[in-house]
Amino acid sequence: MAAQNKTMSALKLYPDPLELRFESVPVPEITHPDDAIVKVLLAGLCGSDLHAYRGLEPFDTPYTTGHELVGIVVGLGESFRNAAAGRPELYSTLKVGDKVVSPFTSSCGECRIGFTARCDHSLLFGSPRLPGAQAQYIRVPHAGGTLFRIPQDDNILGSEPVARIRTSDASLILLADILPTGYFAALQAIQHPNLAYAFARKTFPVIPSFVNAFVTGGESVKVQESDAKLVFAVVGLGPVGLCALISLVELLGLSGTSNFAIVAVDPNGARRTKAEEILSALGSTPGGVIRVVSLEDAPGVSKDLSGGLGCDAVLEIVGNNSALQLAYELIRPFGVISSVGVHTHPQFPLNGDALYSKNVSLAFGRCPVRSIFPYCIELLMSRQDIFSVGGAAGLIEKIVPFDEDSVKEAYRMFNEGKCGKVLFRMASD
Amino acid sequence: MAAQNKTMSALKLYPDPLELRFESVPVPEITHPDDAIVKVLLAGLCGSDLHAYRGLEPFDTPYTTGHELVGIVVGLGESFRNAAAGRPELYSTLKVGDKVVSPFTSSCGECRIGFTARCDHSLLFGSPRLPGAQAQYIRVPHAGGTLFRIPQDDNILGSEPVARIRTSDASLILLADILPTGYFAALQAIQHPNLAYAFARKTFPVIPSFVNAFVTGGESVKVQESDAKLVFAVVGLGPVGLCALISLVELLGLSGTSNFAIVAVDPNGARRTKAEEILSALGSTPGGVIRVVSLEDAPGVSKDLSGGLGCDAVLEIVGNNSALQLAYELIRPFGVISSVGVHTHPQFPLNGDALYSKNVSLAFGRCPVRSIFPYCIELLMSRQDIFSVGGAAGLIEKIVPFDEDSVKEAYRMFNEGKCGKVLFRMASD
Repeated sequence: MAAQNKTMSALKLYPDPLELRFESVPVPEITHPDDAIVKVLLAGLCGSDLHAYRGLEPFDTPYTTGHELVGIVVGLGESFRNAAAGRPELYSTLKVGDKVVSPFTSSCGECRIGFTARCDHSLLFGSPRLPGAQAQYIRVPHAGGTLFRIPQDDNILGSEPVARIRTSDASLILLADILPTGYFAALQAIQHPNLAYAFARKTFPVIPSFVNAFVTGGESVKVQESDAKLVFAVVGLGPVGLCALISLVELLGLSGTSNFAIVAVDPNGARRTKAEEILSALGSTPGGVIRVVSLEDAPGVSKDLSGGLGCDAVLEIVGNNSALQLAYELIRPFGVISSVGVHTHPQFPLNGDALYSKNVSLAFGRCPVRSIFPYCIELLMSRQDIFSVGGAAGLIEKIVPFDEDSVKEAYRMFNEGKCGKVLFRMASD
Repeated sequence: MAAQNKTMSALKLYPDPLELRFESVPVPEITHPDDAIVKVLLAGLCGSDLHAYRGLEPFDTPYTTGHELVGIVVGLGESFRNAAAGRPELYSTLKVGDKVVSPFTSSCGECRIGFTARCDHSLLFGSPRLPGAQAQYIRVPHAGGTLFRIPQDDNILGSEPVARIRTSDASLILLADILPTGYFAALQAIQHPNLAYAFARKTFPVIPSFVNAFVTGGESVKVQESDAKLVFAVVGLGPVGLCALISLVELLGLSGTSNFAIVAVDPNGARRTKAEEILSALGSTPGGVIRVVSLEDAPGVSKDLSGGLGCDAVLEIVGNNSALQLAYELIRPFGVISSVGVHTHPQFPLNGDALYSKNVSLAFGRCPVRSIFPYCIELLMSRQDIFSVGGAAGLIEKIVPFDEDSVKEAYRMFNEGKCGKVLFRMASD
């Protein structure tokens, strides 16, 4: 391996709050046959990097930060030369020189069930247990299960001819966390059985085709167009919320549904403006109505757009109790709350009576990024105006060099809310 | 209408705790064109009748009790003679003389979405706002949307020849509440997208066919037989819990899955014995393993049967915080808690961090009984040994005459936990 016995630059976090050090450390080596070593091209700075930076997640041993990267494979363990039958496909196909992105956690991928965010072998990059991506090189455990290879040919989909679109490395980094997480928030709502009445135009329950249950005769009741309007709310329009909004519009477009409404909610005017810019870039949504509103306006607009019933589903992206309470207020009976925010409040704001009385369904938790990659990549490619650096609709604010002054300045500004999404570009070695 | 201007016997509840009066009251009359008058054959005594009886639900005006009935239509409003186009089918087809059951709530049925338990026009039978079924006659509002007609020909399913099975009126009363509620608890688990990996043998997410979403090439990963084992728990083996267990076994059988396990949990030894009797009557479940266990044994058995992962879904039938906490303990990451119990505790026992950390999905609430009827009727007919009066596996303990001494005795015994499910047989007038 070319990079062995060398040193590299890495950003390390120390136990005292705000103590970051830009250090020279050994380039990581393969320590297990399933490992890959990846040369980092770009690393992202994410809101969750700030928790430990602020001292909110105490730890003892300094570690390399970061969990978003796009890079090039420079070293592969023995498993990639002698892949056993039945192992994840990349053990047979991944090569040195391939461009890859990684989810923010590792996962073994052996069981194929796809709940990768909660794999027993899962580790978080940029944590005391696994060095992170804000470095020139990174070791990826269970790399055949963890990594996603970026196809480099013109036709990324393999089946139909598509326009030649070059995806920027900067956009690819959004695959590490925020685009799949937003997509997952939308998908958990869209695919929920309580919304099937509108897509299938059949009375609840719409038994999924994967369960061969019986239905007695004379009861295949049609839901009429006028009753099949789906109303959604997206609560929180930060970067993940915007990805959720974009994904929801995309999924509804693909579903062929034109009878829908979306209420996008944030108290912050600048975020609402950004959301409007992105919706404008997305273009028309035939038949659908999308409104970007403040917290105060959300309940009234939701009622208006749903004929007084409330929303079929709320995508709760914020991760606090007031967002959950708003979501509960907005949903209709039998509504779905899809929550991808990290909740830390010790008390839940809804009790069993509230959930029972409105027949609420909740879907909570961390996105299984590795499983969502294949669903996001075309969306990412087709919207390079949005998943890009700068511009009115661009989700990434800027790219700065990976040097001591630039990264410390970026952390400080980001921590103070003075800049948006920042990426670090690694120096070539 | 034959019964007009006559009086009938009715059981009325008065505001003082335990004050029941057996009275002679006017036979109800049609007050709206959508009404039906039903002559009650059998009425059920349900656990939720006891809440008001015990004084736990204060009220001012005495009312006729009961929300479970099977009966014969004796009067129909004008809507049944001149049904407008697009109205629920029964407005065109229901006749005087038809045998019917009713859900425990009315629902208009006009929207066809099927969330009937939370219809805006829904009223609970046997409440201050709507006289109940423990009477010789009952008025059913929105009757074309509310009632379910019991087919009286030999072939209840209409399509395939089935064995001639005469359903008993006693068994039909289980359709009013407990069988659909148990079935709904099972269905909410079975049809959840987080269980689709096992039925469809595909990596999560399995996009439902009603959403025409795309999947990029090269990622249609198969889930192997060894990873596709579904493990369920049913927490609470009272009458509804037993119906949930029976429904779950039925649905898994229909799905063709043989790679499953069910852990049936109750602290009460007599209830566990009843569950064992019913499982014995149900017969073999090819490939499936079913264990009936105590609270203490539930976590260990669940782990053993799931290779240490925990349950894919828990059917929580009890409706209290300790049952919810046990459900949380039993599920695997990305597991589903289907809860149909009535929860009254002011504090929820799980917080956002707990739900996030295990990627929990919850489905809460009251069964939309009217929408579940068509799925239950064949199950009811095919298992008359279980959905019957008496016997080791019978879900109904006894039928007593609807007279003052018998009904008061039944309430007292039921309230003291000294008898199981009791039905009242109405005198012919």
